[in-house]
Amino acid sequence: MYAAMGALGLAPSEQSKDYVAPRPGDFTLRGKGTAKVVIIGAGVAGLTAAYELGKAGYDCTLLEAREKAGGRNLTLRGGDRLGELNGPAQEVALGEGVYFNAGPARIAPWMVTLDYCRELGIPIETFVNDNAAAYVHTNGRTMRARTARADMYGYVAEMLAKATNGGALDKAITKDDQERLLDFLRRFGDLGPRLEYEGSSRRGFTKFPAIDGGVILDAPGSLHQILAAGTGRAITNNFGFDQATPMFQPVGGMDAIVTRLVEAVGEDTITTGAKVTKITTLDDGVEVVWTGGSVKADYCIATLPPHILAKIPHNLGAQVTTALKTPVPVAAGKIGLEYGRRWWELEDHIYGGVTETDLDITHIWYPSHDYHAERGLLVGYYNAERDAELYGALTPDDRRRRALTQGKKIHGEKYRQNLLSSVSIAWERQEHIQGGWVRWPSFDSSFTFLQRPAGRVYFAGDWLTHLIAWQAGAMESARSVVTLLHQRVLQSP
Amino acid sequence: MYAAMGALGLAPSEQSKDYVAPRPGDFTLRGKGTAKVVIIGAGVAGLTAAYELGKAGYDCTLLEAREKAGGRNLTLRGGDRLGELNGPAQEVALGEGVYFNAGPARIAPWMVTLDYCRELGIPIETFVNDNAAAYVHTNGRTMRARTARADMYGYVAEMLAKATNGGALDKAITKDDQERLLDFLRRFGDLGPRLEYEGSSRRGFTKFPAIDGGVILDAPGSLHQILAAGTGRAITNNFGFDQATPMFQPVGGMDAIVTRLVEAVGEDTITTGAKVTKITTLDDGVEVVWTGGSVKADYCIATLPPHILAKIPHNLGAQVTTALKTPVPVAAGKIGLEYGRRWWELEDHIYGGVTETDLDITHIWYPSHDYHAERGLLVGYYNAERDAELYGALTPDDRRRRALTQGKKIHGEKYRQNLLSSVSIAWERQEHIQGGWVRWPSFDSSFTFLQRPAGRVYFAGDWLTHLIAWQAGAMESARSVVTLLHQRVLQSP
Repeated sequence: MYAAMGALGLAPSEQSKDYVAPRPGDFTLRGKGTAKVVIIGAGVAGLTAAYELGKAGYDCTLLEAREKAGGRNLTLRGGDRLGELNGPAQEVALGEGVYFNAGPARIAPWMVTLDYCRELGIPIETFVNDNAAAYVHTNGRTMRARTARADMYGYVAEMLAKATNGGALDKAITKDDQERLLDFLRRFGDLGPRLEYEGSSRRGFTKFPAIDGGVILDAPGSLHQILAAGTGRAITNNFGFDQATPMFQPVGGMDAIVTRLVEAVGEDTITTGAKVTKITTLDDGVEVVWTGGSVKADYCIATLPPHILAKIPHNLGAQVTTALKTPVPVAAGKIGLEYGRRWWELEDHIYGGVTETDLDITHIWYPSHDYHAERGLLVGYYNAERDAELYGALTPDDRRRRALTQGKKIHGEKYRQNLLSSVSIAWERQEHIQGGWVRWPSFDSSFTFLQRPAGRVYFAGDWLTHLIAWQAGAMESARSVVTLLHQRVLQSP
Repeated sequence: MYAAMGALGLAPSEQSKDYVAPRPGDFTLRGKGTAKVVIIGAGVAGLTAAYELGKAGYDCTLLEAREKAGGRNLTLRGGDRLGELNGPAQEVALGEGVYFNAGPARIAPWMVTLDYCRELGIPIETFVNDNAAAYVHTNGRTMRARTARADMYGYVAEMLAKATNGGALDKAITKDDQERLLDFLRRFGDLGPRLEYEGSSRRGFTKFPAIDGGVILDAPGSLHQILAAGTGRAITNNFGFDQATPMFQPVGGMDAIVTRLVEAVGEDTITTGAKVTKITTLDDGVEVVWTGGSVKADYCIATLPPHILAKIPHNLGAQVTTALKTPVPVAAGKIGLEYGRRWWELEDHIYGGVTETDLDITHIWYPSHDYHAERGLLVGYYNAERDAELYGALTPDDRRRRALTQGKKIHGEKYRQNLLSSVSIAWERQEHIQGGWVRWPSFDSSFTFLQRPAGRVYFAGDWLTHLIAWQAGAMESARSVVTLLHQRVLQSP
C-alpha cells in the first residue's frame, strides 16, 4: 500500500475513524424504545459515554463519587480547594485568569480529543511541546536544547561520515549512496568542509546576529564530554508519535472539555458525592447501590479506575475481579508555580515548551498561552512512579520547597523570586482516583476480557486502551463501549 | 565561559540587548532642543526609527512612496486591492476574519520583534513551523515528515551502530564511550534489539492506537530507497537558529505591528504617495525633495531597499552609490489559497506547519490559528529566486492554477475543491520595493560603509544587518541608527 501510494506520489492517508454515533433514527426506524444506562464515574470516559448515548436519546444517569465531574481532567483556579487523602487540603490562590491543568494538558493532533473539541465548539491553541530554547539539565549541567541537539547530531554525523569515508559501509551501500549519505550528514550535523563537527550557529549565540554576525556559543566539548553529558534521552523525548510537535490545548484550561460535556449531557443527570458500594447484574437489568440510594437500569458502564472498581462488591464473577486487579496504579504528580513576572520569557526567551532534567522534578513546563502577560504559571515538576511518590509524601509546602531547590539548579536564584502561589497534586492521593494512570504488566487476556461486558456491565476508561494516561484513551474506550452497547440494544428482542 | 557555567550547572544566558532608547531627559538635562529628522520609507525600519526617536521628542517626518505604511509587512484582507508593476491589480476577496501575511509571517523567540510586540501590546500566538504530520514531497513521492525523519534517523543510527561494533571508532573513543553512543543510537533511531532499524511507531500509523495497538505504517524501504527519496533537506529545515521551533505570530495578522507603530508615531507624521526624487546633505541639515514638495531637516534616515535608493539622485558621493548597488535584489513570492473547508485539519490532521517539497512551490504552509474554523487560508507557495520569478511572470490566475496543480500532487483532488479565493504576491513586482529581500555577495566593506552615515544621511533596513529578510533586521538596524544619530545630536555643539 505504501509503495502504491509512493508511485502515485500522493500523501498517505490515515484510516478515517470508523466510529458511528448512535442516532435517534436507530430507534424510531425500528420502533424500539431507548434504554436506561447507569454510568459509574463522571470522568472523561463516563461523560463521553453519556454524551454519545444521549445523541440517540438514551436515558443516562451518572454517579460520581467526587465533588465534581471531570475525574483527572482537572483544571485548578483561584478559589478552588484541593483535598488530599491523608494530607492537608490546599486553597488554590492563583490569580485571575491563571489556571493549572493538574491532569491532562496536551493533545496530539491525531487524537479523538481534538475531534471532540471541534464538535463541542471548544477553541484550541497550540501547545508547545518542544522548544529549542528550553534547557536540558543532566549530570549537573545545563544547556539549551538547541545546543544539546547540535552537539549530538554534529558528532553523530561526523563519526558516520568518517566511517563511511573509511570504507566501513562499502559492503552495505554503493558509492553513489555513500555520496548521498554524506550530503545528508553534512546538513544533519552542519559539518565543516572536512566533514568535521566544529560547532555551529545551531548551538546558539551569546549575542544573536543583528548589525553584526553575533557571537556564537563557544566551541562544543569533545565527543567524550558530549556523551558523558547524557543529554540523549532529553533530546529524543519528542520523537514518539504521541509527543511529536505540534500539540494542542483548549483555550483557558483543559476542563473546557468537561464543562461542555456536562452541559451537553445535562448537569441534572450527574449525581456527585455518590460512592458506589455494590454492582449487581441481573437477567433484566443492573442494580447499582450507592451511598445515597440505588439505581436500576438496563445497562451499566463502569468507568472507575480498575483498582477502585476492584474494591466494589459485585456479582460479575471472579475473573472480573482478577482482571481488575491486574493493572498497577502509577503515582504521578505535578506542581503549578505561579510567578508575578514571566522571567522565562523576559530573560530566557523561552515561550512554552519543556526543560528536560535528570532531577526528580523530571520536567519543567513553560506556559504556551498568555505570552507576555504579567503573571504566568510554570509546571515545576511533572513526574511519575518513585519521583512522584517522593513528592507526594511531602506536605504541599515541602513539595514547593523541593521543586524550587531543584529548579534553581537550572534557572538560578530568580526561580525563587516573584513566586505568588503554588498548588501541587499527587494523583495517588486523590480520593476515588488514587493514581495518575495504570500500567498493565502486559496487554494480556485480562485487558481484552474487560473490553467486553460482564453480564450487563461494561467497562470503560483509558486503562482499557493503548492510550493509557491520555484523555483520548478514555474517549476511545467510551466510544467502543457505546458501540457495543447500542448494537446489543438494537439487536435485543 | 561555557565551561564555567557548566561547572555551576546553571543555564547559559544570552547577552541582554544593550540598546537604550532615547529619553526626553537626554535633552532636558543638557538644556538642548531635539532635532528634526526626515525618514524616507515608512516600512518597519522607518517606523521603528520614528518610534524610538519619538520617545525623546524628536520631530520626525516620514515620506512613504506607497499608498500605505508597512512596506513588506503587508497583511491582506477582503476588500484590499493589490497592485503590481506590469501586471493586473488583484481585488482581495478573502472572507471575514481571514488574512494573508504576504510578507513576514513568523518570529523567532529571541528576535527583537517579540520585544516590540510586548512593548506595543500586540498579543502573540504560537506559529507552528515544524509539524511531524505535515508532508515531505521529494522526487515525486509524498510521505509524512514523521516518516521521513524516522527512516533517516533509523538508518543513520543503524549504520553508525554497526560501524561502532565493527571497530570503526576504536581509535577515536573508548569502549565506555562507545557503549554510551550505542545507548543514544538505540533511542535516536528506535533500533531493534540487534541494533537494526526495522521501522517504528515513529513512522506513523494507518490506524492509530486506541482499543487495540493500531496499525503501524508498513516497513520502511531499503536504505538505498530512503537515500534516493532525497528527503534530507526537508527534514533538516528547522535546525537553524532562526527557524527552530517554536515560532510566533501576532494574533490577527502581522500588520498589527505596523498599525501599532503608526499609532505610536502619529499617522499625521507620515505622508504616503510621496516618492523621493533627490537627497542632499548640507552643512547644516538635509534636504529631501519628493514628488509633492521638499523637506528640510537636521538629519535623514533612508530606509528604502538599496536598489531603489541607488536610483535617487543625491550628493552623498560615488562610494555610496557603488555600495547601494552591491546587494542583489531577490525575487520572492507567495500565494494565499482560501478554502471553505479546513480539509487539512479534518482529513490530514495537519494543524499548522509546513510541507516541504522539491517542487517550484517549495513550501505549503498550513495556518497556525483559528483551528477548526470553517474557512482557512493555506500558503500555496512561498518561493524565492528562480521559482519566484517563474510564478511572478504569470498572471494571478495562472499562478493559482500552477500552485493548485503542484499542490494536488501532494494532497490529491481535494486541493482544488472548496477553493473560495486566492491572492498572490510577487515582491519583485511590488512598486517601490521590487524584491523580497537582497543578497550581499559578501558582507564586505560596502555593507559596513552603509552602516555609518554619509554626511547627515543614515541608512537603515534589514539589508544592513545579518538578519536579512527578517523584520527583526529592520528593527535592529533602526535601533542602531537611532543610537548613532542620538549620540551625534547630544554631542553636537
